[in-house]
Amino acid sequence: MSKQRVLTGITTTGTPHLGNYVGAIRPAIEASKSAQLESFYFLADYHALIKCQDAERIKLSRKEIAATWLALGLNTDNAVFYRQSDVPEIPELCWLLTCMAAKGLMNRAHAYKAVVAANEEAGEDPDFGVTMGLYNYPILMAADILMFNANKVPVGKDQIQHIEMARDIAARFNHHYGNHFNMPEAVVDDKGSILQGLDGRKMSKSYNNTIPLFLTEKQLKKHINKIKTNLLEPGEAKDPDTSTVFQIWEAFASAEQTAQMRDKFAGGIAWGEAKRELFELVNSQLGEAREKYFELMERPADIEDVLQHGASKARAVSAPFIEKLRQAVGLRTFV
Amino acid sequence: MSKQRVLTGITTTGTPHLGNYVGAIRPAIEASKSAQLESFYFLADYHALIKCQDAERIKLSRKEIAATWLALGLNTDNAVFYRQSDVPEIPELCWLLTCMAAKGLMNRAHAYKAVVAANEEAGEDPDFGVTMGLYNYPILMAADILMFNANKVPVGKDQIQHIEMARDIAARFNHHYGNHFNMPEAVVDDKGSILQGLDGRKMSKSYNNTIPLFLTEKQLKKHINKIKTNLLEPGEAKDPDTSTVFQIWEAFASAEQTAQMRDKFAGGIAWGEAKRELFELVNSQLGEAREKYFELMERPADIEDVLQHGASKARAVSAPFIEKLRQAVGLRTFV
Repeated sequence: MSKQRVLTGITTTGTPHLGNYVGAIRPAIEASKSAQLESFYFLADYHALIKCQDAERIKLSRKEIAATWLALGLNTDNAVFYRQSDVPEIPELCWLLTCMAAKGLMNRAHAYKAVVAANEEAGEDPDFGVTMGLYNYPILMAADILMFNANKVPVGKDQIQHIEMARDIAARFNHHYGNHFNMPEAVVDDKGSILQGLDGRKMSKSYNNTIPLFLTEKQLKKHINKIKTNLLEPGEAKDPDTSTVFQIWEAFASAEQTAQMRDKFAGGIAWGEAKRELFELVNSQLGEAREKYFELMERPADIEDVLQHGASKARAVSAPFIEKLRQAVGLRTFV
Repeated sequence: MSKQRVLTGITTTGTPHLGNYVGAIRPAIEASKSAQLESFYFLADYHALIKCQDAERIKLSRKEIAATWLALGLNTDNAVFYRQSDVPEIPELCWLLTCMAAKGLMNRAHAYKAVVAANEEAGEDPDFGVTMGLYNYPILMAADILMFNANKVPVGKDQIQHIEMARDIAARFNHHYGNHFNMPEAVVDDKGSILQGLDGRKMSKSYNNTIPLFLTEKQLKKHINKIKTNLLEPGEAKDPDTSTVFQIWEAFASAEQTAQMRDKFAGGIAWGEAKRELFELVNSQLGEAREKYFELMERPADIEDVLQHGASKARAVSAPFIEKLRQAVGLRTFV
């Protein structure tokens, strides 16, 4: 295989916000346009079940996310864009890999260990509230990646360990059954792709400090006005490097625009004015996609068509591959 | 649903022996003839992967087991006889249930706890050598049962706990997503269905003390001659209740034949003679099936046909049911 295969999963529990856009969606959509890459993007709805038992929330989130990616120009001719739950080979591979994964490996997962530590601190049983979904999560993620033999997996730092686990499980499978899987590599984007939220902490649904990606102009303006600032008056010089307003500006602006805003901060731009300019910038960049987004949200059947097309492209890879893996482990074939 | 639905899985790692026949296969085949029951029997090859990484062993075992059940007269018009790995809805349901299973529940599984105890005794890490397959085994078993909403699951005593776990997981699913699953019940056969092996311990592959079910006459005779006896001479009275020869006799004989043999033991029958009579009895009961078995083993395509027929009957149940479950948890459908 000469082309690099890149795989990205999107968990379908939330509504996309500016932080998702800057950190994950925008670079992924750029990558979808590259003819040098085979990009696989999927709506990770099996993963969503781990933390969300609200079926309506999952359905809505999946629709919002699909509409978002399509509205922003995901190239679905070039890239494969599919819903995880449309690929039944994935849970099957998940079981094959489950039989290859050491329990000791799962015990070392950061996410699991964090829950155990919190439980112990609270004097609870270490596994209090832990579901097997949370515990098995790295195996399903390994199945997502290995099903398509992805070479590169763009992830946040907190996910690097999961890629290492996928490699570990893949290596063990290869050892027992022959060389079926590539060793996937994590690709970590270090250059400040984490956006600050309204309160200055990382923008995250769990902090309830997000600016949703697609809002009406009025709502967007309102959200930007809520960004926390300090009490410096107009005319007083402001520090761009500790300002959320500036940090979001930088994520959307050209280098030249960023330099200009830096000067304005030094020159004492009023917070209100800075926020107004930020609104104009973000609004101008998202305005067109926003229209498409609201249109698509009204046409779920069109989204469905795109996803079915993606599923058939994905299954053209996964169906023959799982057949090969079944043969390797001794399933199905009869003689 | 008026008929009781009964489900039995057969792990495909070994070669069926007399103990399997008496304890599981014979009663199951009787049940397959009842029009009062809907019997589901499946070759549990996903389970086999937990403990067996030898693909050829799994393939051969699956063929031997299928041929065995068919040769012994399984009624496949009445019962549903299928290969687990032909039903892709099972691993998918397994994931849905994984998200519903508490890790604390798995920690209490006897099989897992036994390994942990042995590791601790040996001064090893508690999870040394434990795969996630072993640890997740009760969830896959719950999926096997709940996929078909079985009411009754005939099991050995060591498996009762797994049925309780399936109930627990099913109840949690029902609680979150509405009433989809029946509560399955374990059916434990208490009446001495455990056959002794050559050395007097329970007949089991792991003790290497089995008499395979289908042997040539010569081999069968040889195996029966190897049954451990004591040094009592012909003419000396023998205790039937501590004799493996008598115990196997009883498993195959009518009540009248059993009473007669008891008398012969009291009368000092020679061990050689008792074994000869045992051979005749077993041979006469298995002779016809043995011929069919060896014939079938030469015609794997015919076995495959039967299994494909069974798979389509099974999937006629599982496919619409998983669709309903997907709707319930929020997968697939797009609004």
